[in-house]
Order: sequence, then structure tokens, then C-alpha cells
Amino acid sequence: MIKAGIIGATGYAGGELVRLLANHKEAEIVWYGSRSYIDRKYYEVYRNMFRIVEDVCRDDNLMELAEEADVIFTATPQGFLAGILTEEILEKVKIIDLSADYRIKDVAVYEKWYGIEHKSPRFIREAVYGLCEVNRGLITENTRLVANPGCYTTCSILTAYPLVKEGLIDPDSLIVDAKSGTSGAGRGAKVPNLFCEVNENIKAYGVAGHRHTPEIEEQLGYAGNCRCTISFTPHLMPMNRGILVTEYANLNRKEDGTLPSYEEIQAVYERYYGGERFIRLQEKGVCPETKWVEGSNYVDIGFAIDARTGRIIMMGALDNLVKGAAGQAVQNMNLLFGLKESEGLELVPCFP
Amino acid sequence: MIKAGIIGATGYAGGELVRLLANHKEAEIVWYGSRSYIDRKYYEVYRNMFRIVEDVCRDDNLMELAEEADVIFTATPQGFLAGILTEEILEKVKIIDLSADYRIKDVAVYEKWYGIEHKSPRFIREAVYGLCEVNRGLITENTRLVANPGCYTTCSILTAYPLVKEGLIDPDSLIVDAKSGTSGAGRGAKVPNLFCEVNENIKAYGVAGHRHTPEIEEQLGYAGNCRCTISFTPHLMPMNRGILVTEYANLNRKEDGTLPSYEEIQAVYERYYGGERFIRLQEKGVCPETKWVEGSNYVDIGFAIDARTGRIIMMGALDNLVKGAAGQAVQNMNLLFGLKESEGLELVPCFP
Amino acid sequence: MIKAGIIGATGYAGGELVRLLANHKEAEIVWYGSRSYIDRKYYEVYRNMFRIVEDVCRDDNLMELAEEADVIFTATPQGFLAGILTEEILEKVKIIDLSADYRIKDVAVYEKWYGIEHKSPRFIREAVYGLCEVNRGLITENTRLVANPGCYTTCSILTAYPLVKEGLIDPDSLIVDAKSGTSGAGRGAKVPNLFCEVNENIKAYGVAGHRHTPEIEEQLGYAGNCRCTISFTPHLMPMNRGILVTEYANLNRKEDGTLPSYEEIQAVYERYYGGERFIRLQEKGVCPETKWVEGSNYVDIGFAIDARTGRIIMMGALDNLVKGAAGQAVQNMNLLFGLKESEGLELVPCFP
Amino acid sequence: MIKAGIIGATGYAGGELVRLLANHKEAEIVWYGSRSYIDRKYYEVYRNMFRIVEDVCRDDNLMELAEEADVIFTATPQGFLAGILTEEILEKVKIIDLSADYRIKDVAVYEKWYGIEHKSPRFIREAVYGLCEVNRGLITENTRLVANPGCYTTCSILTAYPLVKEGLIDPDSLIVDAKSGTSGAGRGAKVPNLFCEVNENIKAYGVAGHRHTPEIEEQLGYAGNCRCTISFTPHLMPMNRGILVTEYANLNRKEDGTLPSYEEIQAVYERYYGGERFIRLQEKGVCPETKWVEGSNYVDIGFAIDARTGRIIMMGALDNLVKGAAGQAVQNMNLLFGLKESEGLELVPCFP
Repeated sequence: MIKAGIIGATGYAGGELVRLLANHKEAEIVWYGSRSYIDRKYYEVYRNMFRIVEDVCRDDNLMELAEEADVIFTATPQGFLAGILTEEILEKVKIIDLSADYRIKDVAVYEKWYGIEHKSPRFIREAVYGLCEVNRGLITENTRLVANPGCYTTCSILTAYPLVKEGLIDPDSLIVDAKSGTSGAGRGAKVPNLFCEVNENIKAYGVAGHRHTPEIEEQLGYAGNCRCTISFTPHLMPMNRGILVTEYANLNRKEDGTLPSYEEIQAVYERYYGGERFIRLQEKGVCPETKWVEGSNYVDIGFAIDARTGRIIMMGALDNLVKGAAGQAVQNMNLLFGLKESEGLELVPCFP
Repeated sequence: MIKAGIIGATGYAGGELVRLLANHKEAEIVWYGSRSYIDRKYYEVYRNMFRIVEDVCRDDNLMELAEEADVIFTATPQGFLAGILTEEILEKVKIIDLSADYRIKDVAVYEKWYGIEHKSPRFIREAVYGLCEVNRGLITENTRLVANPGCYTTCSILTAYPLVKEGLIDPDSLIVDAKSGTSGAGRGAKVPNLFCEVNENIKAYGVAGHRHTPEIEEQLGYAGNCRCTISFTPHLMPMNRGILVTEYANLNRKEDGTLPSYEEIQAVYERYYGGERFIRLQEKGVCPETKWVEGSNYVDIGFAIDARTGRIIMMGALDNLVKGAAGQAVQNMNLLFGLKESEGLELVPCFP
Repeated sequence: MIKAGIIGATGYAGGELVRLLANHKEAEIVWYGSRSYIDRKYYEVYRNMFRIVEDVCRDDNLMELAEEADVIFTATPQGFLAGILTEEILEKVKIIDLSADYRIKDVAVYEKWYGIEHKSPRFIREAVYGLCEVNRGLITENTRLVANPGCYTTCSILTAYPLVKEGLIDPDSLIVDAKSGTSGAGRGAKVPNLFCEVNENIKAYGVAGHRHTPEIEEQLGYAGNCRCTISFTPHLMPMNRGILVTEYANLNRKEDGTLPSYEEIQAVYERYYGGERFIRLQEKGVCPETKWVEGSNYVDIGFAIDARTGRIIMMGALDNLVKGAAGQAVQNMNLLFGLKESEGLELVPCFP
Repeated sequence: MIKAGIIGATGYAGGELVRLLANHKEAEIVWYGSRSYIDRKYYEVYRNMFRIVEDVCRDDNLMELAEEADVIFTATPQGFLAGILTEEILEKVKIIDLSADYRIKDVAVYEKWYGIEHKSPRFIREAVYGLCEVNRGLITENTRLVANPGCYTTCSILTAYPLVKEGLIDPDSLIVDAKSGTSGAGRGAKVPNLFCEVNENIKAYGVAGHRHTPEIEEQLGYAGNCRCTISFTPHLMPMNRGILVTEYANLNRKEDGTLPSYEEIQAVYERYYGGERFIRLQEKGVCPETKWVEGSNYVDIGFAIDARTGRIIMMGALDNLVKGAAGQAVQNMNLLFGLKESEGLELVPCFP
């Protein structure tokens, strides 16, 4: 039985980790870390867990936790893990970090977009970017530190990845218009996240400057072996869960000057994702809907070709708390410990 | 492996049965009955099931299905099952009926409230009212026909049952003010169920005449060994899932003229439900919330005593599609086949 | 032109006052009081008011404001106005208080339910309870202080008032099950009011102890010339605006032992409310819906008689920010200044 | 007093016309046309209008109505008006058509995108495209037929119009990612519009083929004096009202090779829209939100420059039933009859 600790167990992503691990056959939670609720019963914070979790919340002492756990999930604010991670800790325990601290390889880019100094850049190189479908081979029993991708980025990257990698689209023409449920904004008590402010309302935010932009650019750059500069615009949606990305890109024409056909593009997607347990390529003409993946670890991907403009419109949908956070973290844990990749993640989406 | 057939598999309750049985280790679905979608892939109707269910929808031929299945779930309109059920079918297959056809023992009451003639009253006596926590002993491998309780009734009855049975409240003073998510209204394309009609709106309906009233009265009457006439008012809520009942009743005073204390009432609830897997008695001062049970088979129950008025206010919450329909049906199936009662129902509520 | 000042202009009720007064022909706002946003443009707080209101927010100096204004609306926390009101202020300006400070005539009751000491009980007697349809005659150009009723209370009282006053129901049997949109909880940044906590969720709160209870009891007691002890249970709804109350009461039987008929009850309602501009008695069989009054100053009232139980079920719906707060406050202002009672309130409900 | 008739008065756009005209000082409705509800009281269809509208619904006899009315609003399905419009009718009455029948000047384009034959192309040239801020000069007392723009198109065009007209962006690079509340889908009883299908869900639809595309292209083509081929992707949002468009375009570089500055772009917007009553140019850094315009005739427009990609991201928000349909229709009526353009439209947005 894998002993798992969670730092930040009372945020929404932390809560989802608890939900998923409660049904995981090979792991158990030994530490519910929550600085705000120390010594309070976990179920008092999330009463859906009443009669399911009896533990009390503990503080965020990573060193002590490293003695007790085999793996630590850090669902913490930017900079937290970078500020306390040490070689000593990594010798004792594997870490799956749900924050952005080790996602971006170029520390200058990190510091510029996040506006904070990176306190432990020495671990950046070691950290594996835990996008399982792309980097599965790097996430092994030898891996010590996984940078778990964010919700927007997981969805944005996976939706375009095969086409960038195969050179079918111009990466610099890529525009990602993303829509996210409000759980992505966290459980902090702020006026803009109040029910009456979000309900019956939609808005863009972080326009031309959202922090997830360089993460997408870096990963797609690796895929296409190029530099890639994109537009990424997130929007806040009046719903709890779910991200939908609508991505626009110019299709590269074939040698004969024609656009690739629907079937040609489909074949590429199929080649990359056809065997993936958690990616569902939609049938022709079907547009992904966030509701169809709710509560599950699926990413649904579809696309349409607009011959008039020479563009492809790609669409991806996932549950931001599952594949966009806790589900992917568990998927990474499964890989780290040599378990079946889908263990604990055989979740059937809930509708309605 | 139990072979299960579903008639009405493309309604919301039918869809939830599919979701639950997909994770049930001892049962598999052999028949997705849906008159409206015959020969269409099931996942075309509910795309959350894409890549999970490959079957096509079939018609509602109960006789043919009886040959193939061990158990049939009928999630069908009132009168459907009563109109076609025969002894021959019951000799071949167990039936769990999610409609109201066999819930009410007094056929005259049924015909009055439902406004239709009952076509097979001869099976009413045999049918067991499948409220597992109350009638568990009657749901056995010898049982052929289970009348699966409705969503409002399950919640309304379980919330008051111990107090009625123990004579702690006056049954005729009972007022049930119930609030239900819109999935309870089904998937029929009707203007009142359109998004723009339900969203940002609440209303009562069926006031002083809703069909679930006699079902609650009958069952509480059995509990209290009395006739019981209640007020039941359902309300439509702008949310997908969940029922909350707020029940008001006059407390019977003790011999010394005082009201029973919170702890005395709590002890009674504890005695009846303390060992129940799917009933969670809330801690003092905690009011059940529908979100805390969403997606699970739990019923959360809490109460407060109002000494000023001599009333008790009881509250119960469940997910209308799970414990209020499909989950309870699976629970009944488990009992019918001697399985672990919670098999396939170890669902952790999803929050947010 | 009446000069109006608002203390607490950046709460939801204050914001609604601004919206309503913006279209009022005889009044203008001269003071947008908001301690939290002093010197900031009002439209920066509520960007719906961009290009409509150019003023900046000012502090809550009641004395200074009294020099500038003809009427002051206080949309402030309990105890605020009671703590600073003086005879000197009341000599200069009329005050319409949207808090509960002067609603309850018995100061001991106020202090018990609100848990704070009343700092200026000497003004309680003078304050008129501003439920216009009941106390219209007392709200005149000579009135200096109006206690504007709360949202729950306005709806609860008006729905039952004629029947209590005419002795048609037993006041002590009255049960008020109330459901409110989340704007009633205010704009404070608290976790329970976050979108993800409220959305797709319903709950009761303040069960058997909500502060609005004694206000309803006191007013219905005046109506029925009796003491009246009721049950009042509020519920939080996943919508922005609207209150629906469902009220249950035992009908008093007539001398011949029969229940009053629907038409007899209707005639009583008609007698009291038939001429009221803002009360719409629904047709037989029609249940009020909150959406039908949204954005307007209407109260919609309907009822059904349950002959089986001898009870009447009354239903009332209003917009908690309009008739339940700012709209009624403007209605009171109109009465105080001898204007047409509906001036600025001829709002057509918005659907959908 | 202008006599107005509405054909299609019981759809959502028709209902909004009724709401707006109820407060219009110079117009009154003389005909509530609704084929589905003939002879039924209008308020039985929309109970928000109870006690406000006493009329009954009538059929859609345009010829008869032309005798009674000064202006007819047709809020009808595509092809309806084109199928019955005659010179005789236009000689008697002005028509403001809320359908797409006369919006597109090239009849071949109309027939291709709408898939129906145009029955009266002879009136297309005469019809004025009623985008008031652009074509105000053409909407006069001599105009007989106005093609009222659609909701998506009004928002899409106005947001980009000045920049296209001034040649600041490359029209062919324009991508419009649009998000609409569900009232835009109408009141038809269809499964995809049910509450449980829309709530907690988002999706794109009509990808690379939505009918509003050529309308936007045509109008922007007139503005830029060019052919213009764009990508337009609509999305369905779980809210009642509101459209937000997020538009991406490549900025044309200036002669010195630099991008235009924020202030330069702002100055252009200011020049076109600075004096417009219903367009609110947002302050720098403020992104429009649909909630800020709800219930009003405003269009809120903001933008950001992304120097990294050389793109501008423009955002526009409006209420699809007001400025996107009924409000703009009333604005057109005001122009047609020489009234103050904002008469009946001085609506303060409702928040929350």
C-alpha cells in the first residue's frame, strides 16, 4: 500500500485528490495537510467526506511528512514547494507537485511570468513534466519529482500536440480560447468568485498575459522542435467543473497546395491517441462538451476543418479537477510506482 | 455475472443505471432498451458513455428480454409495466420497477392519484416496496418483483421513519416541503423544463395533489401502524441533481409534559440508522446539503428541535438519480442476488 | 428634486437602490457612502454603472450627510444606525433604514435574537415599520424614521397577512418554508457564498433560530391581535435573486364545521390586495415563480386548499433586492415625500 | 402614439419586445401575434406580464395587421417574412424584421447558408441593415424595411468595426470566438435546450459553418471595402442572457514597422463610438463582462494588444435579447419614426 501525503488537502484540487484516492486500491492517504485547518476533522471542511475520512488536518511540515509517506502531492500556491524542497526530502519521498514551480524549464521565463524568484532552480532540470500521454516514458520508478501540468495547459497542449508534432499546423498561428469552470479559481474567499458575481456571467481575464501561456508554448515547442508563440485567453464560466478549449490554427498546405483532409488529420490523431485510455477522439461532426467528461479523467478531442479560411478548429474538453489536476496527479503516481496507469481512475463521467 | 436488462435506458434514471452498473463487479448490462432510439448506439444518446458502452439500443420487448436477463430494471412511464407484466415473465426473471406501478398497495389509491386503471393488480401484493433500510428482510433471493421507491418518497420517508415508528411525532402534523433538482423531471422535451425556464427560478408544483403523497402516507402509516395524512409540496430547483426535504412535525410530549431532548431524538435515529451504510446522521447543528451527497448513494439526515413551537424540523438530502432511483435499484439488485449490499455503490460524493 | 444619500451603497441592496434611483424622476443621489471604497469611482465597484454614475464613494458620516440630503437610506449592518442615530440628525433628514435596527418594537426581543445591545432604543417607538401595503397610512410627510422590512419578512408577512387578520387561519400553526437567492447573503467574501459552494446545492440554515422569525411574529401578531409563534426556515438557493415562501397553516373551520372554500379565501385576499399596485394575486391553480417577478417590485401570491389535511398552502414570491429591499425603500420614500407611490418602480419583470 | 404589431410575440425575442415597449412612451402594442397561442391571454404564456398585458394572442395575418399598425416587428423563423411580404404591405406599414431574411444582400449567399430559397429577393436591396451605430443615416422616416441584425452579428461587427474600417487589422485574420446565453436558442422544446443538458456544460456548435458567418463577413467587408473571410465559432453557455465575443486579429504594422499602441487604437474606437449612447468603451485593462450589460441596450467593448504575437484581442459584450434583438429593434423603430433614439431604452443594467 502506497502511503500518500497531501499538502494543501483542503483546496479544491486537494479535495479531489482525497476523493480519487479514497477509491484507489493501492494507495492510502496518511497525511491531510492544511495549514488553515490544523487539528480539525477533514470532513468538517468537506462534509461530502463525512463518514468516509475520519482523519484530522495536519500542518505542512514536508520534512516530517517525508518520513511517513512514499509520495507527496503538493497542491499549494506558486513558490511554496520551490521554497522548501531539499535534496534530503527527495531522497526519501517522491513528489508530485500540482503547482507551477517546476513546470517551466527556463527559470527566467518562470520568474518573469510568475513575478517571484525561484528558490530552488537546481531541481527544475530533474523534474519531469507529468503530461502522461506525452512523457509517459520519463515517469518511472526512478523519477523523484513530477511537475503535474495545470488544467488549462493539459487541455490546450493535448488538443494540439499531434498536429504540432507532425508539422500539420503553423504553431505561431495558434490561438487558444479557453473556458473554465469556477473551481479552477480555487476556494479562496474573494469577491470575484462569489456566487452572485460568477453566476449568469462570463468574462475573459488575464488577456495577453496569463501565466499558463509560456507553459503551453514550451511544451508545444518541444513537440514541434521550434519556438512557438501563441495567444491564450482564459474565460471564467458559470459552472463548477470543466474546461473547453477552442483552438484555431492555420493548416500547412501539402506539397500539392491543397489542405490536408479531415481523414488525414484524423489519422494523425488516431496514431497518437488511438491507444490512449483517457483520450477520446470524437467522431466526425461531434463537438466535445464538458459535461461528457465531468468527474472523469477523460480528455475529449474533436476538430473541424474550415476550408474557407484554411484553418483548423480543434476542441478539447476535460474536467479541470480530474485530468486537469488530481486525476492526472494520480495517473502520474501510478506510473511512478509501476501500477496500472488507470488504477483509481476508471471513473465513468456523470450525466447530467 | 448477473445479466441485467434495462427498459427505458435512455431516460435520466436509465442513464444513471448504466453509469452505476458500468462499475459493478457482479453485473453486466445485456439489454439497453429504448423505444425512441432503437438500433442507435447508446453512446450517441449519452456521449459521456462514448468508448465505455458500445451496444446499440433495443426495443422494450419484455418477454424476449426475460429470456436473456436475470434481472430487468424498468425505468418506464406509469402504467407501462403494469400493462405487460405476466406470471410467465416473473417465472423467468426478477424485476425491479422504477415506476410507481407496484408501490401502492391499495389499487384504488393508485388509480385515483395516477388517473389510470391498473392493468395487473394481481402482482401488487407480491411486490416488495424496495426501501432497503426499512424492508431489507423482504428483499431476498426469493423475491421476484421489487417496487423501487421514488426519489421524493425515499427521502421523505427515511427522514421521518424512526420518529413515526417510535411514536415521537404526530404523523398527521407532518408537513414535507421538498426541493428537487430538475433531472427529476426527466428528459422529455417540454417548455417548462427548458434551461431558460428553470434557471434562476424556483416554484412549487403539484401543490396539495402530488402523486408521491399517498406513497409517503402509506409507508409512514405502516411504520406508525396508523393512518397518516400529510402535506407534501414539491419544488423545482435550478440544479441538476439533489433532493432536500424539510419536514415539520409536532413532537409528542413525554409523560412529564416536556419535549424530548435533542439527544433523545438523536438516540432513536442512531438506533435505526447507526449501522446503515448509506445513511449519514449529521452532527448536531449541521444541516444536510444536497451537494454533499451528489453522485453517491447516501442519504444525509439532520434535525433541529424548536422548543418555542414544540416542533421538530427534520432535513434529509439525497441524489435523486442515485439513492432516489438507480442507486437504490442497484442496492435492491444486490439484495435480490445475495451480493454485498453496497457492491457498485461505494461512490464518494463529488464536490464541488 | 429629492436629494438622497445612501450609506452602504456598495452592498447588493445599496447597488439596487442606485439602479432604481437612476430612473427615478423626482430623486437624485447626492452621496454614495461606502467605507470600503472611499474616493473610488462608484462604477469601479459596479461596472454595470459605468457611464451612468460618475460619482466617487464617500464615507459614512451621517451627520455631514444629513446636511446635504433630504433622505438617507442606510443599507448597513445591524447595529450601525442604532449606534449613531441622534435627534439632531432626525431633525434634519428622513431616514429609511434597511437594517433591522428599528423593526422590532420590543427591544428585549431585538437584543436576544440579534445578540447585540440596542444603542438607541428611544427611537424604536417612533420608527414606522415600512411595509407599505399594511402601514401606508403611517408613512407620511411627518414620518422621520422608517424601518424598511427585510426580504424574508416582507414576503412571509404579506403572503399570510389577510388570512391572519381575518382569523381564517390559526397563527400558531403557521410554518414558513422560505427559499432565497444568494444575493440575500450579501457581497461579503466568505467561503460559503463562493460560486462553487452555492451552485448545484441547496441547504437550510438558521433552522429554528433565524433572526427574521420574531419580526414576522410581531407583525402577524399585530394583524391578528394575538401572540403568534411560528416556524420559519430559510433555505439558500443557487440563483441570484428571488424569494419564494411556501406557508402552511391550519384553516379555521366555519361555524358549520366546513372549511372555507377557495373562493371565500380568494375574496379575502382580493379585498385586501385587489387594489394594490405591487401585489398580484394569481389565478386559481397558478403557483408563483420567482422568475415572474425578477427585477420588479411585485409580490405574487397564490394558494391552494388541501381539504385532506385541512390546511392551506400559501405561496408568495418577490425579488429580494427590489420589493425585499431597495424597491420597498423607494416605495417608502415616495410615501414620505407625497409622491406617486409607484414612481421609479414601474419595472416590468424580466424574463428569461 | 405609434401602433406596433408583433408577429412571433411569444418567442423570447418577442417577449423582450413586449417588455421594452411596455415602457415606451411613444408606442403601444396593438397586436400580439402568436400562431401557437391564438386566443389565449398573452400573460398565460409569460406570467411575468400578468396584470401588465391583458391582450390575447392573435394569428400572424400580416395583411390584416398592416391595416392596424404603423410598424410591424417580425420575430419569426427564417423564410417566414420573405414568403409573405408584398409591396402592398410595405406601402401601408414599416417592417422591422428580426429574422435573417433581408440581412444578406447577396441572395445566393443567403440561400447557400440558410438552405432555403428566398421567396422575395426583390426587397433585399431596399432593406436597410439596421445596425444603428453604423447605418444610422439610412434608417429614416422614408425607410420601409429594416433587417434587424442578429445577436452574434451585432456583437461581432461592432467590436471590430472601427479597426476594420480604418485598416488597422487584417480582416482575413479575424477569428471570432463567441459565447452566448441559452435564450439565444429560443423557446422551442428540444432536448439539447433542456435545463439538465445545458446546465454545468459548455460546447461549441456550428463550427466552421454557422449561419451568422456570412452576415459578419458582408458587413465588415463593407466597412473595410474588401472581401473578408473570417472564422466564427459560437458556444452555448449555461446562463440565460448575454453574449461575449473574443476576437483575435493581426494588427497591421505602421510604416515604421511598429505595432500601433494601445492609445492609438483607443483613439480610433473613441472617434467612432465616443459619442454613442449605447456603446461603452471600457477603460484600459477592463474586460467586458456580460453581467454588466444584462437587461440593457449597451454594448461594452474592450481590447488588449499582445505585442508578443502582434495580435489584438478585442472583446464585446451585450445582452442578446436587448441590443442583440428587441432593444436594437426598438432603437430602429425610434429612428424610423424620428423619435429620440434612446426612447424606451434608458435601461440600467441589472446586477447581480
